[in-house]
Amino acid sequence: MAVDGEHVLRLEPTEDEVVIQVEDLHRLARRLYGGAGVPEGDAELMADLQVETDVRGVHSHGTRALPGYIRRILGGHTNPKPEVRVIKEGPSYAMVDGDGCMGHLASVRAMQKAIGKANETGVGIASVIHSRHYGAAACYATMPLEHGMIGFAVSSSSKGVAPFGGTERVMGNHGLAHAVPAGEEYPLVLDMASGVSAWGRVGTMRMYGKKLHMDWVLDEDGNPTDDPHQAHVLLPAGGSNGPKGSAYNLLMDVLSGILPMGLATVNRVGEEFAGQQNASQFFQAIKVDNFIPLEEFTAEMDRMIQTVRNSRRKDGVDRIYLPGEMEWLKKEAWSKSGIPMHKRHVGSLEDMADELGVEVPWR
Amino acid sequence: MAVDGEHVLRLEPTEDEVVIQVEDLHRLARRLYGGAGVPEGDAELMADLQVETDVRGVHSHGTRALPGYIRRILGGHTNPKPEVRVIKEGPSYAMVDGDGCMGHLASVRAMQKAIGKANETGVGIASVIHSRHYGAAACYATMPLEHGMIGFAVSSSSKGVAPFGGTERVMGNHGLAHAVPAGEEYPLVLDMASGVSAWGRVGTMRMYGKKLHMDWVLDEDGNPTDDPHQAHVLLPAGGSNGPKGSAYNLLMDVLSGILPMGLATVNRVGEEFAGQQNASQFFQAIKVDNFIPLEEFTAEMDRMIQTVRNSRRKDGVDRIYLPGEMEWLKKEAWSKSGIPMHKRHVGSLEDMADELGVEVPWR
Repeated sequence: MAVDGEHVLRLEPTEDEVVIQVEDLHRLARRLYGGAGVPEGDAELMADLQVETDVRGVHSHGTRALPGYIRRILGGHTNPKPEVRVIKEGPSYAMVDGDGCMGHLASVRAMQKAIGKANETGVGIASVIHSRHYGAAACYATMPLEHGMIGFAVSSSSKGVAPFGGTERVMGNHGLAHAVPAGEEYPLVLDMASGVSAWGRVGTMRMYGKKLHMDWVLDEDGNPTDDPHQAHVLLPAGGSNGPKGSAYNLLMDVLSGILPMGLATVNRVGEEFAGQQNASQFFQAIKVDNFIPLEEFTAEMDRMIQTVRNSRRKDGVDRIYLPGEMEWLKKEAWSKSGIPMHKRHVGSLEDMADELGVEVPWR
Repeated sequence: MAVDGEHVLRLEPTEDEVVIQVEDLHRLARRLYGGAGVPEGDAELMADLQVETDVRGVHSHGTRALPGYIRRILGGHTNPKPEVRVIKEGPSYAMVDGDGCMGHLASVRAMQKAIGKANETGVGIASVIHSRHYGAAACYATMPLEHGMIGFAVSSSSKGVAPFGGTERVMGNHGLAHAVPAGEEYPLVLDMASGVSAWGRVGTMRMYGKKLHMDWVLDEDGNPTDDPHQAHVLLPAGGSNGPKGSAYNLLMDVLSGILPMGLATVNRVGEEFAGQQNASQFFQAIKVDNFIPLEEFTAEMDRMIQTVRNSRRKDGVDRIYLPGEMEWLKKEAWSKSGIPMHKRHVGSLEDMADELGVEVPWR
């Protein structure tokens, strides 16, 4: 198989990786944000979300993105001391203005509003404007779980995906997630890019010297390639289901861009509208127990998960993993053992620490 | 290309087809339901929805399904005179009991409730239980459009899709649709099965003697095949994005089965839980103008659609069609010219008319 990790859970570090303890990574992240002028509470929250993302194994959206965020603060593109506020709300909806913040901060606030609305009316939706990259969508989609709710999060994006039948980087590659509470089993979590892959994952494959599926990217001439170094444009999710992937991608653009601020990712141009700048987001929470008792719901979730896990497998597949299951298993293991992280990833954090004059806990 | 119609809009009838006028088809559908004991208003509504589906070119979910529905009424499996009622509601949610009705009837009622809730609170959701097959999801997802809302509909299903890594018909193939209002352009409509294809489409390919994509189905031995006659189990949508397709499929099962009635399609067994029996559904409407003015929203939708349509195409692709665009163009053409329908499809309607002693308008 060309692509790593599809049916195999890898918990041990590779030769290219070092193991970093969760508390050490959290301490460094907090210090780095503090060193860049981010207030203590926000630095703590950023460290929480990004380390949680790393311990789930989604490095592309965890602390690997941290040096980039800090550079944008230092470069004046992101507001280190934003006033995040609710600018409009009704019984089941709210709009949050991020004031140029790191997207994570406004996103947490918006999802809290959506959860509050869902408690009162059954379902809540919230949008965020004047925001930036929000990291891993799962951070927000999982917030409603402890309230007995189903969560959803989606963000605007940089452009990088061709529509079905096209070869141009015209559509966004929206980070989105759905999360559903379960009982004894882990909650179901779909954390994904709306295109065939996150660009971060293409970068990871490049870093680890791996090949891509042939139906993932086109090169500069519009031809399919499995070489991550030649990747010029991503295809819509779906392979031969391109029309579905393409359509779903546009729907994500509607929710994350047109509904919040009247501007589709598809129509964003220039630096000011790249993924890291002037981003917008959308969140939703649905309360389960208006429909059926939560225990009945979570018991049936468990039964669904077990039915799928125990169904007949293809030759060579040892186990069917449910959506998000590998990430929960990594979190369980790595919370104790520490997180295997690529040396270059660790190096970029250390470089940033040196630049800001901040102490590295493991050095 | 193995699969018909992906980049080419075909409006002319093939050799296997005859052209039936919309009014004639509507008249026959109404008469057939009347002949099966369905009250006049419900017969009219069923004819509206099924003919609308045919004129959009989605024959698998239009009147081709009609003889099956009527057989289930005659066999006592579907209630021809149901009392469809709202059994519970709150500010933003409602539950509808279909009383064993054809799914269409309860679905229209539920979406009306969701639209009403969205008008009051910003977003509305509604579930349906004790229902049956609901035909084309687009019928309901498009209802919110004229209210300046984004619509969504999804149904429980018969089983027929393998999870990623699996070979067993363990997951449903949920009919779902999203619809988004536009301005001068046609509304964006995603009307699709959660698996790689609707079974009805596999049947259509069989009827027209066409091949499938190799990543659509497995045969009885779990091997890929492009022969629609050998199709035993559908794959999840997504091809090499199988994990996404599989995850999305389960999410649709959560919304359409577990949330409404605590029973996943995955866990339904036996005839009583097949797609036509004891189905359940979920609907949602989001009001646009709480977030931004509707004219701003629809103008940006138009701009998005035009940006995608005018982007660089692959060699051999004459035009990039937007989601739902081919169906709108068919409707525009066929509303005037009549609908090209396969002779066997027309024959099955005529046979049912003979069986019920009902006059066929075109004979």
